[in-house]
Parts: sequence; structure tokens; C-alpha cells
Amino acid sequence: MKKQIPFIVLSDKHTAMPLYRQVYNSIRTSILQGELAAKTRLPPTRVLADQLGVSRITVVNAYEQLFAEGYLEGKIGAGTFVASKLPDDLLQTSKPKNIEKRQSSPLNLSPFGEKLLMGDLESTRVQFETKFQPFQNGLTAIDEFPFGIWSRIAAKFYKNPPRSMLGYGDPQGFYKLREAVAAHLKSARGVNCTAEQVIITSGAQQALDLTARIFLSEKDTFLIEEPCYREAWNSFSATGAKDFSVAVDKEGFNLANAPRTDEKAKLVYVTPSHQYPLGHTMTLARRLELIEWARKQNAWIIEDDYNSEYRYAGRPLASLQGLDSAGRVIYIGTFSKTIFPALRIGCLVVPPDLVDVFTVARAFNDAHSSVVNQAILAEFISEGHFARHVRRMRRLYEERQEILVREVKNKLADFIEIEKSEAGMHLIGWLRHDLNEEKIAAEASKKNIKLSAVSSYYSGKPPRKGFIFGYTAFDELQIKEAIAKLAEILRRID
Amino acid sequence: MKKQIPFIVLSDKHTAMPLYRQVYNSIRTSILQGELAAKTRLPPTRVLADQLGVSRITVVNAYEQLFAEGYLEGKIGAGTFVASKLPDDLLQTSKPKNIEKRQSSPLNLSPFGEKLLMGDLESTRVQFETKFQPFQNGLTAIDEFPFGIWSRIAAKFYKNPPRSMLGYGDPQGFYKLREAVAAHLKSARGVNCTAEQVIITSGAQQALDLTARIFLSEKDTFLIEEPCYREAWNSFSATGAKDFSVAVDKEGFNLANAPRTDEKAKLVYVTPSHQYPLGHTMTLARRLELIEWARKQNAWIIEDDYNSEYRYAGRPLASLQGLDSAGRVIYIGTFSKTIFPALRIGCLVVPPDLVDVFTVARAFNDAHSSVVNQAILAEFISEGHFARHVRRMRRLYEERQEILVREVKNKLADFIEIEKSEAGMHLIGWLRHDLNEEKIAAEASKKNIKLSAVSSYYSGKPPRKGFIFGYTAFDELQIKEAIAKLAEILRRID
Repeated sequence: MKKQIPFIVLSDKHTAMPLYRQVYNSIRTSILQGELAAKTRLPPTRVLADQLGVSRITVVNAYEQLFAEGYLEGKIGAGTFVASKLPDDLLQTSKPKNIEKRQSSPLNLSPFGEKLLMGDLESTRVQFETKFQPFQNGLTAIDEFPFGIWSRIAAKFYKNPPRSMLGYGDPQGFYKLREAVAAHLKSARGVNCTAEQVIITSGAQQALDLTARIFLSEKDTFLIEEPCYREAWNSFSATGAKDFSVAVDKEGFNLANAPRTDEKAKLVYVTPSHQYPLGHTMTLARRLELIEWARKQNAWIIEDDYNSEYRYAGRPLASLQGLDSAGRVIYIGTFSKTIFPALRIGCLVVPPDLVDVFTVARAFNDAHSSVVNQAILAEFISEGHFARHVRRMRRLYEERQEILVREVKNKLADFIEIEKSEAGMHLIGWLRHDLNEEKIAAEASKKNIKLSAVSSYYSGKPPRKGFIFGYTAFDELQIKEAIAKLAEILRRID
Repeated sequence: MKKQIPFIVLSDKHTAMPLYRQVYNSIRTSILQGELAAKTRLPPTRVLADQLGVSRITVVNAYEQLFAEGYLEGKIGAGTFVASKLPDDLLQTSKPKNIEKRQSSPLNLSPFGEKLLMGDLESTRVQFETKFQPFQNGLTAIDEFPFGIWSRIAAKFYKNPPRSMLGYGDPQGFYKLREAVAAHLKSARGVNCTAEQVIITSGAQQALDLTARIFLSEKDTFLIEEPCYREAWNSFSATGAKDFSVAVDKEGFNLANAPRTDEKAKLVYVTPSHQYPLGHTMTLARRLELIEWARKQNAWIIEDDYNSEYRYAGRPLASLQGLDSAGRVIYIGTFSKTIFPALRIGCLVVPPDLVDVFTVARAFNDAHSSVVNQAILAEFISEGHFARHVRRMRRLYEERQEILVREVKNKLADFIEIEKSEAGMHLIGWLRHDLNEEKIAAEASKKNIKLSAVSSYYSGKPPRKGFIFGYTAFDELQIKEAIAKLAEILRRID
């Protein structure tokens, strides 16, 4: 008898793949690669079983699967053939397991896809894990988080999970969380809103992306702070809209610095409570001026209130949103800086007549956020744990800021100028001399120190060189050691 | 003395708002509403405190806050004045708390935003909570989910949460979950992939949205099954791309039914393992034909493998992706049908040269999915609980399907034709007579029965009327009662 299926190689028994599957795979591959032509007769199951040293049922199962998928024809027992219907030309050229290397043919993406692929947009957020290296910015003191309480709330939820919360949920967000967020934003931030205006997002990043998609297209222009939060610039630019960078000064965003052509700008992005990354607070006069401008322009103001919880002196300024009587402000908040980033919960507060479009956009994007996480956070806030944790962290972060300033002044005074700040999670250490930022950052990186150059936040030439020093996630010892290493590095650099 | 601040009304003591904040709010509102003009002198703190019957420190705190925010000028003790810098015209027109009703001025949205607002896209996914009414489709038997095991894994995670997993994570997804997903898809679905090609998404919805954004713009066209999954149509249409609906038959998607003009179609959306909603399996010949077409066209095939875990007879067919040697298939999977929808975890498997663009798009969209949920799911799968749960549900759902068929045949045979199916989570009950679908659905809804008309899945006129009967989330009693009620309703309808 002709050895019809000479190519079946069964793996040794340690493989997880069932024997019938191995037989199935071998035959299927041979058919697809044209080694077994259409109408070829296969050996009876008993014969093949003997040949392979497996039980007959194994081969029967493999054949049945191949019948079901249309690779075989006939009836088991009455002659089994490779299907005649398979178009031969397709089979000859198919090479499963190895995908052909794409030739010069373009990937054929959308303009958005092309932008992403070409790296026109800097994706600073693409990272694989957080190494918590000093002085990475925007991280929390994760070891201080009350995971015990959080876990207890989670366990309580899972003990008797309400059915209605485990199907598909409200794209606008779990209502109890929206209530808790509205109450918090009203009292802590002077945000003028009800739970009906709050939209829970998967972090501030999704809030930015939704906002960009809802307002901007390639015909539009937007204004953004110079320097600025790069992820915001990315989100708005990804729509194809044209950007205008507007230099900030000590009073924050300054419309007077906007180019004349901005008169048609549709959207402006600001960080009024703590300019990112310089740290200035936008003055009241500037705030009112901006709102009036937006009202006249029919433009939108995006207020990113990313870390307003951390103010160490004075009281937090009320939000810009709270001043807005024209319904022009979209407020963005995040729990990444208070709970932890991996949770992926943030929020939007939008004028009442924009709630629908944001909610539908969210539904289109990804339905809604994990309801379990939303429910845990709602309880964490309403039981008072959130406020308590933020208060504790505020004290801790203030202390850590003091340690950082002291260490820099003691050990790096010749190289770096640093000043205390009333708020925030980072300071800027300005270089006293015209040193090479990239070289310093590269040397620091070798010592597991992460320094971001201030220049990377500018679209143009920055007025001065310096680095961002995030301090919130690092204890006294870590700060001391890292500053000592940095002093060594700077002494060696010229 | 002139009663300079006659408008301060302190709430009774049951309010949560601190007294100083009430004083602050009153003064601030008066300034913004122009009741207190620029340069107006405020009473000394002691005088106002007496007048209001509060302690002096309360008023000092309020004044300090107003100083900090730029509403007041001067020095406490040396005369306190409303700031002179505030532009008067702004102040007069501001009416905090009540946002002006927008006049005729347009909201000024992007084309995407306008589409969403105008309801051009049906947002069938917008719902506030899942009521688990028979015969809602796509829901799981949530009461059968092993929450005890899930909760134990969660507690274990929180007991000693790895720091590096609580900062910002990998936009492509938690690596261990990607490994577990790749292993599962390889063995259960014949998907040809490594963990490097898997991208974890926030449900299948995000996979659809990312795919639409990466490939389509208003210049493109796409092919979609007729009838089809409406959310997929929504996602692709939201980009402004033109759609062509291609009628399916018993062999699934049929390119021969595509209009001639489709020759430039850039993308095709199919549900090969279980056509949604008709339930057909796409034959091998059709699969190979489609892949060859995509190769020649340089087009993309989106394979939505939404519920392939539930096959009750025969074995699951291998995925279309597993046949693709041209790297043209984007595979979409979901855990909404196996774990529960509220978890919001799904996945994409993309050809190697598309991994980067999808990962960056995900980073731009919302950074990544909740890492805790991903870690719990990874452990749930790798400990074998996932496979066990799916096996249990397969038996249960098969039983429930049988109950549904039996009840319909016993009590609704005059009105509805229904046949067993080898797979899926729903059946279609075809109406024997030309009854009014909407009227029946409306009557059913009054009895807490949810019926979706088959016609709602068609862009054109459906060949026949009927309803979707989801059966997986309902036990014998619920199915019996609902069918009995439906029999009553149908007997009364003409």
C-alpha cells in the first residue's frame, strides 16, 4: 500500500496537545500545503492507527474534525478522501505557520494609523512596566497605599456580587462612583457639577482621547501650553488638527502670546492649578479672560486638573470649571495620582449638553470601565478612606519634597538650582551651567536614575535647561542615594 | 457702618461645608456677580465675624483663600479690598451655578462627534444596567461563576502586590495574560500566534474601535455581513468610511454577493465560526477564498470570534486566522462571554508587523487595561479555572438550549419555528406568520421579556421575521415562565 500520510510526526508525550489533535494538524497542514492533493484517498482509520501506534479512536476523532471543517469528504468506513471542492491554487500557495514577509506593499492604514506608525507622535506613555526609579514623575508612594482596606472592599463585593452589575453597565460610569466623584470635586475643587455631568474614564488618557475625537479633525486648530504635557499634545495632534503652542508665564497660560491666526482655534488645553511641568498657578484674571475668549469664539477649554490634591501650603485654588458660566469647560481629573495608575480610573466633567455625546463616544470606544473597580473605588471614597489617604500622602509628599530640596542644596548646589513649591508631585532642577542634558540623563540612567529633560516638554527651544525631579514615590534613603550618585555624575561631566 | 456684605447666608450646622468655605463662597459669588465692585473695602475680619456670629479665624481663613485666588487685595488687618485687576465686564456677566442655556450656536464638534450626536450611528450598547431579562442575548449564567476562586486570587494579589505592576503598565497588555491567552487560542481555536501578537483590550468593543481607527477613514469602504453585529458596523461607520452589506448564506459570508464596486474595499468584517446573528459556520472553501481575496486586494479581514467556546456538537472549527498565511487577518476575542461582561477584557491577535501600531494606538486611547484585573484573569486561566468553568458552562448552556427548544415547540409551535443549533448562546425563533415584530416586542417588554427583532440586524429588508432568543443566562423556570407569557401575548396579537 502506498504510504499516503508519511509526514505525520507525533510529539512525545510531554506535549499538552492531545494525540488526535496532532494527527489532525499533520493532515490539515499537508492538505493546505498541497502535499495531499484533492480527492486523495486516506487510509482507513484502523490502518493509520496501527501505522502510528495510536488507538483507532484517536484517528477517528482527527478524521471527524477534518470532515467537520470541510477538509475531507466521504464517509468514515466507506472511503475517506481529501475534499474536491478546495480551490487548488489557494492550497499550493498557502504556507501556514510562517506568515509571508510583506513585500513593498504598504500596510494600507488610515491617516491616524500612519501617524502612529511613523512615530510622528511621540508615545512617551508606551512603557512595559514601572521601575519606580528616582526621579520618575507622577508616581505615587505605592507602599503606603492601604491595600488591606481595598482588598476587604473587593472581597465584600465578590462575596455577594449584584448580578445587575456584572453584565453590561453604564458607559457614563457606575452611578455611585459618579456621585462620590461629584461630591469630592465640588467640595475639594469647587467644580460646579452633579453626578449627571460626570463621565468615568479609563484614566485621564481616555478623557483626552475622547475629547480630541469629539471636537477636533484635520480642519481644526487648537492652542496648547508651551511647555506642555506631551500626551495631551499627542491626543489632539492625532486627529490631524493643527497646533499652536502658547508660552506660559508666571501667571500661567497667556492668551496674549497666542499667534493672531489662533482666532479660529476650536479648543485650548490648560493645566491651571499647577502648570505642567513648570508648576505655575493660573491667576484669576487669566482664568476669566480665557473663559470670555472661549465664550466669544465658541471654543472649548480643556482643564486638566491632574494633581490638584497635592497642595502643601495655602489652600487649593478652585477649578477653572467652577468659574465657567458659559459651559465652555471640559474638566479632566484622574485617580492615577491618588490611588495608583494601574487602576485606570479618571473622570470628565462636561457641560450638560455634552453629556450625551461623550457618553455615546465612550460606549463606542470600549463600552465602559471595569464595574468591579468602579464599585470598589466608590466605596473607598464614600467610606472616607480616599480623603484620609490623600491627607496622609499630602504630609508624606511635603516631607519628601523637603528632603529633595535639602539634598539638592547640600550636594548639588554647584550644578542645580531648585526651589520649594507649594504644590505638585515634582520640582524642576534647573541646570546652572550649559551642560548636555542628554549626556547627563544617559549617565544617570546607567545608575538607575530617571531624569526627564525640561526641554522635552517644549515644542521650541526652552529658555533654560533642567530636569524634572519627581519625589513622591521615593523615600529619604532613595532620594539621598540618588542625589549622591547624581553629584558624582555631574562632577565628572563637562 | 455700611453693611458691606449683607448677602452672606450661613447654612445650618448640618451641612458638610466648613463655615469658612461658606463665607468664602458668599463673598466670591458676590464679586463674580458684580454685587461687590472692584476696590470695594471689606469689613475687618473681627467685625464680619461678630456680624455673622462666627469665630474670627473662620473669616480670616475665608479672606486668605480669597487673597490666594486673587479676588482680594491689600493686607489682612491693613484694609481688605476687592481686587482692582478683575475685568469688570467679565464679572457683570458671570452667573456661576447656572450655566447659560446655549443659544442657536452649534456645539462645534468634529465630524465624528456630530455623527454620534445626531444618532446617525445606533448606539445599541448604551444601557445603564443589565436587567438579565429573558431572552437578552450575550449574557452569561452569572450565578454560576466561581466568584470564590476569583476573589481568592484577587486577595492573594492584594496581599503582596508587586510594585512594578501598580504604576503604568504595558499598553499591549500584562505579559502573563498575553501568554495565557495565546496558549488558549492556539489550542482551542487553532490561532497561529505568540504572546507577542496578542493585544489585550477593554472588551471586544475596544478591539473594534482600535481596528476601525487604524485602518479606515472617510475615503475608504468596508464590507460587512448582512445581517451583522451592529456594534461592528457602528465602529467602522464612525470613521466616515462607506459600508457595503454582503448577504450571507448557509456557508457564511459570500464574496460573490459583494457589489462590483467593492473591489477597492479595504476591510471586511466577518464572524466565521458562528455568523452573528444567524449562526452559520463559514465553510473552508469560503474562508480560503476570502483570504486569497484579501491578499490580492491588500485588504484586511476582521475575524470576530465572539463565542466560539460554546459548541455543543462536533468540535469547534479552527479560526480563520489559523488559515491565513498572508498576514491579512485581525482576530478579535472576548472574555465577556466566558467570565462576565463587566470585567471588560478582550483581545486582539494581529500580524507581527501590525503589533506596534496597535500597541501605540492603545497607549493613545487609554494607556492600558486595569492591571489588577489582567493579573487575576491570567492566574484564573493558568490555574485551569477558566477551562473548567467553560466546560461547565458548555454543558449548562446546552441544557438550557434544549429547554428553550422544548418549551417553544410545546407552547409556541403555532407561532414560532425554532431549531436546535450546534453552537452559540442564542437561537433564532422565526415567526410563522407575518406579525408585527415591534408590537410583539413592546408587549413582551411589559412582561419583562426582552426580544430583539432579527430585522434590527439587517440594513435592508430581512427575508423573514423573527426574534433572537438568548438562553444562556436563564434557568429552566425563567425560560418556562417567559415562554408561557409569550404564548399568551402571541395568542392575543393579530
